[in-house]
Amino acid sequence: MSQNPRDIAIIGSGLVGSLLAIYLRRRGHQVTVFDRRPDIRTVEFSGRSINLAMSTRGWKALAGVDLEEEVKKIAIPLYRRAMHSADGELTYQDYGKQGEAIWSISRGILNRKMIDFAEEAGAEFRFNEKVWDVELPEAKIYTGESEKSHWQEYQFDHVFGCDGAFSRVRHRMQRRSRFNYSQEFIDLGYKELTIPAAEDGSHVLDKHSFHIWPRGQFMLIAMPNIDGSFTCTLFMPFEGPVSFEKITTKQEAMDFFKKYFPQVQKEIENLTQNFFENPTSAMVTMKCFPWTYWDKVALVGDSAHAVVPFFGQGMNAGFEDIDVLDALLNRYPDNWERVFKEYEKSRKPNADAIAELSFRNFKEMSTKTADPLFLLQKKIERKFANAHPERWVPAYSRVTFSNNSYSEALEEGDRQEGIMKQIMTLPDIEEKWDSDEVEQKILSLLEQQDS
Amino acid sequence: MSQNPRDIAIIGSGLVGSLLAIYLRRRGHQVTVFDRRPDIRTVEFSGRSINLAMSTRGWKALAGVDLEEEVKKIAIPLYRRAMHSADGELTYQDYGKQGEAIWSISRGILNRKMIDFAEEAGAEFRFNEKVWDVELPEAKIYTGESEKSHWQEYQFDHVFGCDGAFSRVRHRMQRRSRFNYSQEFIDLGYKELTIPAAEDGSHVLDKHSFHIWPRGQFMLIAMPNIDGSFTCTLFMPFEGPVSFEKITTKQEAMDFFKKYFPQVQKEIENLTQNFFENPTSAMVTMKCFPWTYWDKVALVGDSAHAVVPFFGQGMNAGFEDIDVLDALLNRYPDNWERVFKEYEKSRKPNADAIAELSFRNFKEMSTKTADPLFLLQKKIERKFANAHPERWVPAYSRVTFSNNSYSEALEEGDRQEGIMKQIMTLPDIEEKWDSDEVEQKILSLLEQQDS
Repeated sequence: MSQNPRDIAIIGSGLVGSLLAIYLRRRGHQVTVFDRRPDIRTVEFSGRSINLAMSTRGWKALAGVDLEEEVKKIAIPLYRRAMHSADGELTYQDYGKQGEAIWSISRGILNRKMIDFAEEAGAEFRFNEKVWDVELPEAKIYTGESEKSHWQEYQFDHVFGCDGAFSRVRHRMQRRSRFNYSQEFIDLGYKELTIPAAEDGSHVLDKHSFHIWPRGQFMLIAMPNIDGSFTCTLFMPFEGPVSFEKITTKQEAMDFFKKYFPQVQKEIENLTQNFFENPTSAMVTMKCFPWTYWDKVALVGDSAHAVVPFFGQGMNAGFEDIDVLDALLNRYPDNWERVFKEYEKSRKPNADAIAELSFRNFKEMSTKTADPLFLLQKKIERKFANAHPERWVPAYSRVTFSNNSYSEALEEGDRQEGIMKQIMTLPDIEEKWDSDEVEQKILSLLEQQDS
Repeated sequence: MSQNPRDIAIIGSGLVGSLLAIYLRRRGHQVTVFDRRPDIRTVEFSGRSINLAMSTRGWKALAGVDLEEEVKKIAIPLYRRAMHSADGELTYQDYGKQGEAIWSISRGILNRKMIDFAEEAGAEFRFNEKVWDVELPEAKIYTGESEKSHWQEYQFDHVFGCDGAFSRVRHRMQRRSRFNYSQEFIDLGYKELTIPAAEDGSHVLDKHSFHIWPRGQFMLIAMPNIDGSFTCTLFMPFEGPVSFEKITTKQEAMDFFKKYFPQVQKEIENLTQNFFENPTSAMVTMKCFPWTYWDKVALVGDSAHAVVPFFGQGMNAGFEDIDVLDALLNRYPDNWERVFKEYEKSRKPNADAIAELSFRNFKEMSTKTADPLFLLQKKIERKFANAHPERWVPAYSRVTFSNNSYSEALEEGDRQEGIMKQIMTLPDIEEKWDSDEVEQKILSLLEQQDS
């Protein structure tokens, strides 16, 4: 418990906002959570979300407030990727030899649970209350019906902006001088679709797999829900030959699903209906700095660092922010200025690293999965990693199944890429890719780097 | 004259806004210019500006509305750089053999003149009227005393955002989905200082030189005014061993000028006074896309692309935007949608290129000017360019003394850099840098690239 309990506002009742509320309540602080939207427990889900893939970092942050077991009850472990090729072939790739898994969770269901937990911990929630402005040096916030209506003023000791990629709190910080900021959209959009449960309530695809239908410029993924359904996400360019703008009628949508995803014939009716019901959403990489204002205001999660979803790390990274903040509050008790400074300093390089890794995954997916040399390279890497698990930990494992820093995963990934570049230029690599010679060459390149 | 005169709003009465007003009036459109600030002709200058260096692109745009000769009356040609070294040595470098010059102009004086010209051309100016919002699809703007006061609504056919790096018009576009945006501040700030005219009204330094006191991490520059004074700009880190934050007393300021700028002893009193009177300003690179909204709204100048000032091209690039817009209006008469699309498409890569070139100049200045190998490289390049002016046009000349695209200048610069990288790795380059061998090597590398 803090010797000096403070009055704290959290803007945003999403996953990061509600977990942070729990952490701060445990320390004895007074916590009020504001959200412009209604209580998610009282409304239908939006139809615009991608299922969460909770991995090691996320679980660690939940374990810190003893919620790991509770949350596992609404999660399904995925032990492998299931790749559905265009010609109908299905191949599985385990995430790891030791039964490593990512966990599929519905964002809406988890969010409802987290708000329950936060309320139980004593946080006060003020839904439907829109924050329009923040007086940074005073930690004051202003709420009201509209930007031009009468505003209500609140005074706090600290304000946390957990209000997502388009954060209103950050918006205020952006208007200060020397605030670095960038938002970069990708040309791909995404749309949530659903594959319903079978009549007996069971899953119609293997429920312990992360299902992927890679199609080059576009792809479909599916992740299981506990009710037997799958939440699918269709990633596709906004414009171009195969794109959201090209599909405008029910017939076009059905033709599209039939042609490219023959494995989901039975679900086409439902997918087609979803296609027109649900919005097409954009994806952005958002970076900024600084993340804090003196000891008054701090950004946490997507408001500080939004990434494209191709590494499944958005929520995990936000939860890790909280884990780091908590460790700093232990280290510098009640010294909020120091905590905020150290927090942004230690997290910023890692946020940049996961942004880069996520963007690279997007690039790989959309430009390289049709390149035979790239596929060969991945095959060589997998073979080597299996033979020498201690010498070659893939970036995916470092990011997903460890708590080591994202920066380290990025650096190691670059090192590995440097080695593979040399390997791929070996003469006749297509023929001898699984030879001893190649294996020895990788080992010797690794040793060169180490020395 | 346009067959279809339109009612056009320009937001911002700076250099770009007023020149654009003149161009549009010439075509017969109705033009209203809004500015949140008072009429610059009625107030003192701000003490936060860097003198302008008008070069070929800027003159071309002025010539397009027959203003070149008028503006030359308030400009002073600079034919060379005057480099003042730390030990008091003074060396000159001509900009070109053919008497090429950049022209020093006071931003305030030019701005006043441009508003006069625009008024004469029939543009209406509404000063002290703050635009708070823009309804993009309707080309409506909203003005008022404050963000929360009653707003006045205006309806136009087209709206041009010429309201600078922190544009309110762009601000509205930023809130749309899929709008890419970045602002990146550098760690250097700048401060305007003045060296007054001598008692007889003459200039105390050579008036046809661009004066530079390079000091590694910081530098002072001076550009002449027509009244005999020089507008100086001190560029220096905000924080660090030698920095704005370290100079807090009059004595510290005087010591600083004495130590680093021994050539301006007599002016120290004045410089010191300015140092505390004038604000320290930040510098930002701002990029965004798109620049237009259908046929309704377009960003021009700094609102679309702000650059750091180390290439002296900010205003020139903005004026070139107008030149390009004008050419497109000739090509697609009254087809505003097409004009806006082509405008942003053709200008964006060039805006990115001048941003990159300007940033590189900053980097060179702040990290490389103390590196003997870098200085040697520049010496080799100069010698070669003098011997083969047709084979080696430096990026500086391409940017400053031509109307070829900024993109081309950047590409050529990269090509040259590639060649020089190879040259600098030649054994004993320090000894044989001005040998025939090196000259022949550069020629052969150029030929390799051409083939």
